[in-house]
Amino acid sequence: MNLDLREYSVRTDLAVESKEIAENVHGKPLSGLNEQIEEQDGIKITRLDVTTPAVSEQIGKIMGHYITIEVPGLRTQDSDLQERVSAAFSKEFGLFLQKIGIQSAAKVLIVGLGNWNVTPDALGPLVVENVLVTRHYFELAPDQVSPGYREVSAIAPGVLGITGIESSEVVQGIVERTKPDLIIAIDALASRSLERVNTTIQIADIGIHPGSGIGNKRRGLTKEILGIPCIAIGVPTVCYASTIVNNVFDLMKSHFNEEIGSEENVQTKQIMGLLNDLSEGERLGLVKEVLEPLGHDLIVTPKEIDEFIEDIANVIASGLNLALHDAVDPDNVASYTH
Amino acid sequence: MNLDLREYSVRTDLAVESKEIAENVHGKPLSGLNEQIEEQDGIKITRLDVTTPAVSEQIGKIMGHYITIEVPGLRTQDSDLQERVSAAFSKEFGLFLQKIGIQSAAKVLIVGLGNWNVTPDALGPLVVENVLVTRHYFELAPDQVSPGYREVSAIAPGVLGITGIESSEVVQGIVERTKPDLIIAIDALASRSLERVNTTIQIADIGIHPGSGIGNKRRGLTKEILGIPCIAIGVPTVCYASTIVNNVFDLMKSHFNEEIGSEENVQTKQIMGLLNDLSEGERLGLVKEVLEPLGHDLIVTPKEIDEFIEDIANVIASGLNLALHDAVDPDNVASYTH
Amino acid sequence: MNLDLREYSVRTDLAVESKEIAENVHGKPLSGLNEQIEEQDGIKITRLDVTTPAVSEQIGKIMGHYITIEVPGLRTQDSDLQERVSAAFSKEFGLFLQKIGIQSAAKVLIVGLGNWNVTPDALGPLVVENVLVTRHYFELAPDQVSPGYREVSAIAPGVLGITGIESSEVVQGIVERTKPDLIIAIDALASRSLERVNTTIQIADIGIHPGSGIGNKRRGLTKEILGIPCIAIGVPTVCYASTIVNNVFDLMKSHFNEEIGSEENVQTKQIMGLLNDLSEGERLGLVKEVLEPLGHDLIVTPKEIDEFIEDIANVIASGLNLALHDAVDPDNVASYTH
Amino acid sequence: MNLDLREYSVRTDLAVESKEIAENVHGKPLSGLNEQIEEQDGIKITRLDVTTPAVSEQIGKIMGHYITIEVPGLRTQDSDLQERVSAAFSKEFGLFLQKIGIQSAAKVLIVGLGNWNVTPDALGPLVVENVLVTRHYFELAPDQVSPGYREVSAIAPGVLGITGIESSEVVQGIVERTKPDLIIAIDALASRSLERVNTTIQIADIGIHPGSGIGNKRRGLTKEILGIPCIAIGVPTVCYASTIVNNVFDLMKSHFNEEIGSEENVQTKQIMGLLNDLSEGERLGLVKEVLEPLGHDLIVTPKEIDEFIEDIANVIASGLNLALHDAVDPDNVASYTH
Repeated sequence: MNLDLREYSVRTDLAVESKEIAENVHGKPLSGLNEQIEEQDGIKITRLDVTTPAVSEQIGKIMGHYITIEVPGLRTQDSDLQERVSAAFSKEFGLFLQKIGIQSAAKVLIVGLGNWNVTPDALGPLVVENVLVTRHYFELAPDQVSPGYREVSAIAPGVLGITGIESSEVVQGIVERTKPDLIIAIDALASRSLERVNTTIQIADIGIHPGSGIGNKRRGLTKEILGIPCIAIGVPTVCYASTIVNNVFDLMKSHFNEEIGSEENVQTKQIMGLLNDLSEGERLGLVKEVLEPLGHDLIVTPKEIDEFIEDIANVIASGLNLALHDAVDPDNVASYTH
Repeated sequence: MNLDLREYSVRTDLAVESKEIAENVHGKPLSGLNEQIEEQDGIKITRLDVTTPAVSEQIGKIMGHYITIEVPGLRTQDSDLQERVSAAFSKEFGLFLQKIGIQSAAKVLIVGLGNWNVTPDALGPLVVENVLVTRHYFELAPDQVSPGYREVSAIAPGVLGITGIESSEVVQGIVERTKPDLIIAIDALASRSLERVNTTIQIADIGIHPGSGIGNKRRGLTKEILGIPCIAIGVPTVCYASTIVNNVFDLMKSHFNEEIGSEENVQTKQIMGLLNDLSEGERLGLVKEVLEPLGHDLIVTPKEIDEFIEDIANVIASGLNLALHDAVDPDNVASYTH
Repeated sequence: MNLDLREYSVRTDLAVESKEIAENVHGKPLSGLNEQIEEQDGIKITRLDVTTPAVSEQIGKIMGHYITIEVPGLRTQDSDLQERVSAAFSKEFGLFLQKIGIQSAAKVLIVGLGNWNVTPDALGPLVVENVLVTRHYFELAPDQVSPGYREVSAIAPGVLGITGIESSEVVQGIVERTKPDLIIAIDALASRSLERVNTTIQIADIGIHPGSGIGNKRRGLTKEILGIPCIAIGVPTVCYASTIVNNVFDLMKSHFNEEIGSEENVQTKQIMGLLNDLSEGERLGLVKEVLEPLGHDLIVTPKEIDEFIEDIANVIASGLNLALHDAVDPDNVASYTH
Repeated sequence: MNLDLREYSVRTDLAVESKEIAENVHGKPLSGLNEQIEEQDGIKITRLDVTTPAVSEQIGKIMGHYITIEVPGLRTQDSDLQERVSAAFSKEFGLFLQKIGIQSAAKVLIVGLGNWNVTPDALGPLVVENVLVTRHYFELAPDQVSPGYREVSAIAPGVLGITGIESSEVVQGIVERTKPDLIIAIDALASRSLERVNTTIQIADIGIHPGSGIGNKRRGLTKEILGIPCIAIGVPTVCYASTIVNNVFDLMKSHFNEEIGSEENVQTKQIMGLLNDLSEGERLGLVKEVLEPLGHDLIVTPKEIDEFIEDIANVIASGLNLALHDAVDPDNVASYTH
C-alpha cells in the first residue's frame, strides 16, 4: 500500500511552538537557542533567543529575541489575574526594550493591525483605542508636557479588503511623516494548538512578516522596510480545524505512551495504526487532504471570543502604558484605558 | 491490552445527525422514520418525521416533525443565495404550520433565546430585533389593522447568568399574561460537525428541551410546560473541539475506504489501527479522555461569526415575516427588517 | 393685539424641577413639602417628600419620597468622581430602603426599561447587564449561598415597538412567577433643562407611570398594578429642543435682572418685550407653536452620549450592588460589574 | 441702558446657511454667487458657485462649487426615499466630477474623518466600511480587473485624541505613497439649525479646512497641502444648543411678522422687545453670554442618531459606488455595501 503524503509545514506564529516541533523532529535540543523559563503564580515566561542562522532555519523563525507569556488561567476572566499579567507583561516589555537597546526617550508609534469588524481579528485596533497617546501634546506644547511621559502615537491602518491599501504602506507613509524611533505592532495570530488560543502573548523584535497573523499583511513591517526597529506583540486568537485535529493525535500518542509505559509503544502503534508512524507534517498533510476538499478546514475561535478580546486588549494596553511612561504606575494605570 | 472506553453519547441538536449516527450503528435504515429529501439550487431540504416511540429512542430524538435546510453555500455571504434561502425557509415554514395544524389566525409569540453579548449565542435576540411585531396594533386599535397581518409579539428573555431567571419562567409569565396560541423559539445550537455550523437551519415542533442549545435553559419550552405548541428553530453556530476531531476520524475512514476500495478495508485498519474498530461513541470517549483533563475541549465557532450571525438572523427574520403575514411578500420583505 | 396662547404644562420627570416651576408660579415656598439639601465635594443631594394631596397636585408629582443626586462634574468623565457618586448613590439608596420600610432580606427584581439600540434610551438594559444577580443560586442551591448576599434578579423587557408587548405586562408576568418583594425600575428620562442631562440621578418610591420616561410604557409599574413596591431610578438623558429654548429665556431673564438690578426690571421688559410677562407655560406654548409645525421640536441628547451612558450605567449598577449586598464593598465592587 | 454685545460670527459648515445669513445682513442678493435650485419628490438640490473673492469674504466661504442636497423626509427612515436620495446624490456627484474636470480614470482615495466611538462623529469611518475598494486588485492583477471599475482606496485616519497624529498628516503620508489623483473626504458637520441635522448633504470642491467639522482637524485636507484636488462631502449631525435657541428667535420673528402682517412689525417689536432689533450675530452673542458660563452650550444630536448615521452612511457609500464605477448600477448597488 502506498500512502503518498505530502509533508506539510506545521506553520505557527509562535516561536515556542516552532521550537517544540523542531525538537520533536530532531529528537534533541537544538544548539543556537538560548532559552530561559520562569514561572510564577500561573504565569509562565519563556525568553528565547534565536542566535544563529542555522537554528533560525531549523525552527523556521527569524533570528531575534522572543518572549512568550503563557497564562492558561486567562480564559477564566479573573480580573485580579489580568492585572497581574498586565504588570508582568509591562515588566518583561521594559526589560526587552533595554535588551534590544531602545532609548528611554525613543518616540513610539503603536500599530494595531487587523479588522475592527471581525472579533478575533480586532485585537490590534482595540489596543490602539486603549493606549495613552501623547504625541499631539509634544507637538502642540512640548514645554507643557509633564515629565514621565514619552512621545507615543497610535494607528489602526485597517485591512486590505476594506482599504485597498496594504497596512505596511499606510504605516510607511505615517513613519515618513511623523518620524518615530520605534514601531510596536499588535496583531492577532493563529496558533497550532487550541490551548494557546487566548492564553499566550508573544513579544518579538522581528517585526511583522508577510503571511504572519490572520489578516492580509503581505509586505510586512520590518526594519528593512521601515528603517526603524519594529517590535511585534501577538496573541493567538484562532486556530485551524486541521491543527486542532493534528494536535489531538499528538495528545493521544503521549496519552497512550504514558498510560501503557514507553516500552510498550508497540501497543500504541496497534491502537493508532500507521498514524503513529507519520511525522507531524505528514499527519497534518493527511488531515488537510481529508478536510480541505470538503471546505471543512475552517479557522475557528472559542465561543467566548467577544469578552476575551476585550480583556486581553486591555491587558496589553495597560501593560504598554506602564512600560512606556514612567508617570504611569499600577495605581493610576486603570484611568488611562477606556 | 485493555482499552476500557466509556461509550459517550454523540450529542447533537440536529435530528439529521442523530439519524445518521443511529443508522451507522444499526447498519441499516430505521423503521418508524419518514424521510423526504429535496434538493434544488444548492438548498437541501430534509423532512423527517419521528413517528414511533421505538425509533424516537433509537435516535435519541423526541417524536415529532423535523425539517432541516442545509445550504453549504451560506458561508460565502452571497446575498442572492440568502434571499433564496429566506424564501425557501418561509415556504417550508408555512407548510409546516399547516402540517401540524396551526390556524392561520393563530397569535404568535416569538422567543429569541440566548445572550446578546456572546456573538455565537446572539441569534435569538437578533431575530427578535428584526421580526415584524404587530400585537400592539391589535391591542390598541384592532379595527385599524390592515388585513394580511397576524398578531405577533416577540421577546428576548435573556440568559440565566444575566437575569437570574430561567428563560422558561420569563416566557411562561408572558404567555400567561398575553395568551398567544403558538410559541416560535429561536436558538443557537451546537453541531456535531464543523461543516454544519452556520449552514443549517432546523425547524421542529418539539419545543426547547433542557440541555439543548448552547445556553442555560434547563426547564425547557414545551407544550407540557406552556400549554401551547412550541416550534423550535435552531441554527448550529458552534461545535466542540472533540466533535471536530471525532468527525475527522469519520472522514478519514470514509476517505481511505473510498480510495482503497471497500474490499480492502483491512488496509484502512492498518492505517488507523484500533481507532478503526471503535464505535463513534467510544472514539468520542477517547478524544474527550485526552482533551478534557487539559481543558482543551473548548466550544469553538468560525472566525467569521460576526458577519454570519447577522446574515442568518436576517434570513430567519425575513422568512418568518413572509410566512406569518400574507401582506408581506418578497417585494416588500426587506423593508420590514432593520 | 391678542396673543392667544395655550398654557402648556412644562412636563418634567424630575421632582426638583416640578417643585421649582411650581414655586416660581406661586412666588413662595409650598407647604406639604419636606426638603433637605446636602452638598459635598461637587455632589448635591436633595431629599424631597411630597406629603399632602394638595402639594402633590400643585407640583404635579405623586405623593412619595424623592431623592435627587446632582453632579454637574459627571460630564467630565472623571473616574474618581464616578466612584464617589457611586458610593454616595449607594449610601442614599440604602437609607431610602430603610426609610420606606424595605426589609434587608427582601427579594429584588431589577427592571431595565428602554431600548438597547437607541443609545440615550439604553440606560436600563445596560444597568441590567452590570448588576450582580443571585436568584439562580438561591433557587438551585440555597444552602450554598454565602452570607451577605440577597436574592436579586434582573430583566430588560424591551420596548413596545420591538416586542409588541408593554413592559408592564412582561414585568407583571415575571412578578407573578418569581414572587419578588420589591421592584427597582431603571429608566432614561427627559429633562426640562439641558444642564441636568447626564448629570442627575433621581430615586423615587412612586414606580413608573404612564407617559414618564422617553419610551413607551403606558401601563406603568406601580404598587397598584404589581402588588409590590416599585422604586424608580431615573437619569435624564435627553431633552426637547423646545425646553432648551424655554430654559434659555429663563436664564436670560435672571441674567438681565441680575445685571441690571431687580429694581430696574422695567429694562428687562424692554429688552425681552412681552416674552418677559408670559408664564413659563405660555412661553413654552409659544415656542412649541413656532417649532412644531416645522417638525423642529426634536428630542436631543449631548454628542458624547455613547461614553456617558456607559459611565452612568456603571455608576448605578455599582451603587446597587453595594447597597443590596452586604458582601459587596467598595474594595471589591469593581469586580462585580462588566 | 447699555447692551454691550459682541457680534458673534454665526459659524456654519453649510454654504447655503452662510449665504442665507449674509443675505439677511445685506438685505439683498449678493453678486458673485451663481445659484441654481432644483426640487423634485422631496429632494431639493442647490448648486452654488462662489465665484469672486468679494462674495467669498461676504459669506465667509472659500471660492468654489457647493452642492447641497436637502431632504427633510430623511428623518423618517423611509428606505425607498433613501434609495432615491442615493441615486440623486450619485447623479449630482458624477456631474460635479465632470464640472470640476476630474478624469473618469482618476484614482480616488476616500478619507473617512471622525471617531468610530462617538456616534454622531462616526459618519466618515462608516462610509469607508461600506464603499467598494478596488486598488488592491489593480495593484495585484491589473489585467484581470473587469472594465467598469476605477481604482479606489479608502482610509479612516482616526482622530487626534486617539492617534496623537493629525488626520491630515496620516492622509498626506498615504497620498505620498499611493499617489491617488483625487481625495474624497467624508466628515460629520455642525449645522446652524436643528432642522438640517441629518437631512442635508453638502458636496464641495474646497477640501477640509482647519476648524471645520466637529472633530480635530486643524491642518486640513486641501489641494495646497496634498497636491491633488480634495472634494469634501459633509452631513450635519450635530448643532450647538446656542444655535438652536438663536434659530428659534428667527422663527419667532418670521412667525409674528407673518401672523400680524408686515406693516405691523411694531407689534413684533412689542412682543420681542429689543431682541427684535439685534442682528443675528448679536443675538447669538447674547445667548452664548447666558449659556456658556453655566456650561450649558452643549453640542447636541437627535436622540435617534444611531439609526440615522447608519442610514446616511449607506446612502453616501451607495451613491459613491454608483458614481465612481460604471459597472455598479442601481440594480446591483445594494450588494456592494455591507
